[in-house]
Amino acid sequence: MTGVNRVWRLRNRPVGGIGEGDLTLETEPTPEPGDGQCLVRLNYLSLDPTNLVWMKQDSYIPAVAVDDPMRGIVCGTVAESRSDGLPTGAIVIGLGTWADYQLGTPDTLQVMGDTGPLPVAEAFGTFAAVGPTAYVGMVDIGRPKAGEAVVVSGAAGAVGSIAGQIAKIRDCRVIGLAGTDEKCTWITNELGFDTAINYRTEDVPTALEAACPEGIDIYFDNTGGEILDACLARMNVFGRVVTCGQISQYTSQGAWSGPTNYGSILVNRLTVKGFIILDHMDRYPEAIGTMSGWMAAGKLRVRNEIIDGLENAVESCKRLFTGAHSGKLIVRVEDVS
Amino acid sequence: MTGVNRVWRLRNRPVGGIGEGDLTLETEPTPEPGDGQCLVRLNYLSLDPTNLVWMKQDSYIPAVAVDDPMRGIVCGTVAESRSDGLPTGAIVIGLGTWADYQLGTPDTLQVMGDTGPLPVAEAFGTFAAVGPTAYVGMVDIGRPKAGEAVVVSGAAGAVGSIAGQIAKIRDCRVIGLAGTDEKCTWITNELGFDTAINYRTEDVPTALEAACPEGIDIYFDNTGGEILDACLARMNVFGRVVTCGQISQYTSQGAWSGPTNYGSILVNRLTVKGFIILDHMDRYPEAIGTMSGWMAAGKLRVRNEIIDGLENAVESCKRLFTGAHSGKLIVRVEDVS
Repeated sequence: MTGVNRVWRLRNRPVGGIGEGDLTLETEPTPEPGDGQCLVRLNYLSLDPTNLVWMKQDSYIPAVAVDDPMRGIVCGTVAESRSDGLPTGAIVIGLGTWADYQLGTPDTLQVMGDTGPLPVAEAFGTFAAVGPTAYVGMVDIGRPKAGEAVVVSGAAGAVGSIAGQIAKIRDCRVIGLAGTDEKCTWITNELGFDTAINYRTEDVPTALEAACPEGIDIYFDNTGGEILDACLARMNVFGRVVTCGQISQYTSQGAWSGPTNYGSILVNRLTVKGFIILDHMDRYPEAIGTMSGWMAAGKLRVRNEIIDGLENAVESCKRLFTGAHSGKLIVRVEDVS
Repeated sequence: MTGVNRVWRLRNRPVGGIGEGDLTLETEPTPEPGDGQCLVRLNYLSLDPTNLVWMKQDSYIPAVAVDDPMRGIVCGTVAESRSDGLPTGAIVIGLGTWADYQLGTPDTLQVMGDTGPLPVAEAFGTFAAVGPTAYVGMVDIGRPKAGEAVVVSGAAGAVGSIAGQIAKIRDCRVIGLAGTDEKCTWITNELGFDTAINYRTEDVPTALEAACPEGIDIYFDNTGGEILDACLARMNVFGRVVTCGQISQYTSQGAWSGPTNYGSILVNRLTVKGFIILDHMDRYPEAIGTMSGWMAAGKLRVRNEIIDGLENAVESCKRLFTGAHSGKLIVRVEDVS
């Protein structure tokens, strides 16, 4: 095979956030596909908060083994195939690794559908995971009704920014929490959120009381931690907590911490439901179809930030946990031809 | 009106558990029913863990006002009526007060249905609240499937003992947690639980690991606290946590404490749902009908402990929080004639 093959390998389980030397970039021989496998040239790599969980511990999938290539959501082109379902030249997406070249099978990869007017990178960034996650979480689990008060944490993030817009499309009043004034301005002025709260500079319980004087009907939880606690304290009877992420806990050095106001689940008869998009693949066609329509009609905006170079994957991934980004982070290794 | 009227009044909001002088028993004039009201002679008073919450703080209903009569689930006989729906001589149940004589309206009381072969006290103890609570919680919210592992805390309590038996009727493997060896023996030998764990003498995480080597599918939570945390840590993917009570927190002197293992909701895609039986009155006919059938067939056993004398209500209520009881506590003031 052609090309240099660079592979990010996990060397140590991070303690807290990703530390120096936890992953190393190696130059290695390009692997040869066996029977039923294909060789994939990586085009785009998705960076997601859950990557850190995969580095640290078993969760909804096993942790990446130490010294193995780092796992990621990938978009690539089949360079050589010994698998009937994944022909040479096909653009594929799925679970792969942080490597220029990698082997795949129909169990881990699927051929990407027609992206319509969207460039492949944009379609991958929007629809590989974050868009359907926001859709399933808000539409199926949150079940927003017109006029309800919906709070979204991580509201300038990839999933949160879309989830909040879906609630607006469903005629809810939407309050987003983000960590910089620039992000707050973006979600209100450009995405149409009704209110933004800067959780780093404002007192969250006070700000939520002002923004939701009649309580919260849906809390779309990307963060856990203190924001979760403040929202639980203001939930309305029969409210729904959509548990999509707990990013405030991913960098913790020990056990995650739970909310003090858990008793609100009983007192207010809440439904708290966790979900992982991998369990809802049957909802992709509706989610992508509906969201594509909203995007074409100008009702839904997405922001993909594209970073060039596989060598920048680790430093870029760290930005997910410092709040130094908004929207979706994608590493571009080589554009699709 | 005839008879001495004794009234338990709330004098101080308890700090922690019920303290000396928090309630006082007064002798007062018997009230006169106004238009639309009836005068009720109290026959039986239900003692429930939620009584303590009502004394301390607003929850799903407002706290009892200081100096007001204490609120309770009551069964009584209409002694005098100026309400069309509540005729003199009718046996009524609903939300009333801890008082020999009290006023009621059709908003707070309803005429008790035919109790079939059951004495009124037994029917009241079983069906006024705890039976339907166990039924709705296990059948509607837990949705047990044959072969699943179901853990019940407060398993020798009024609701827990019934909830566990319902899971057995649905062919689940049922593990109960209780606080004395006598209770553990009762739930396994007489009620048919597969395993009992004495949470005061055993290490709960270790015991749960032994009892549920393949994880927990349903946790019926009456207690919150450390048992909740241990169960969250062992929940299976797509497990359900039925949040029925948090009795371990009711006697706390400050804020309730939440679980450390809250992250399991996300990782294991759990559904955690709180409920209060008052929201599910439409389920009473099915619950009572089905459970009566199970009782007649010998599949469901209930234990009502009847304490004589309204003057003993407060001391008996305290026993709910020390574990010095099993089954349902009812105060008998005067048997129905």
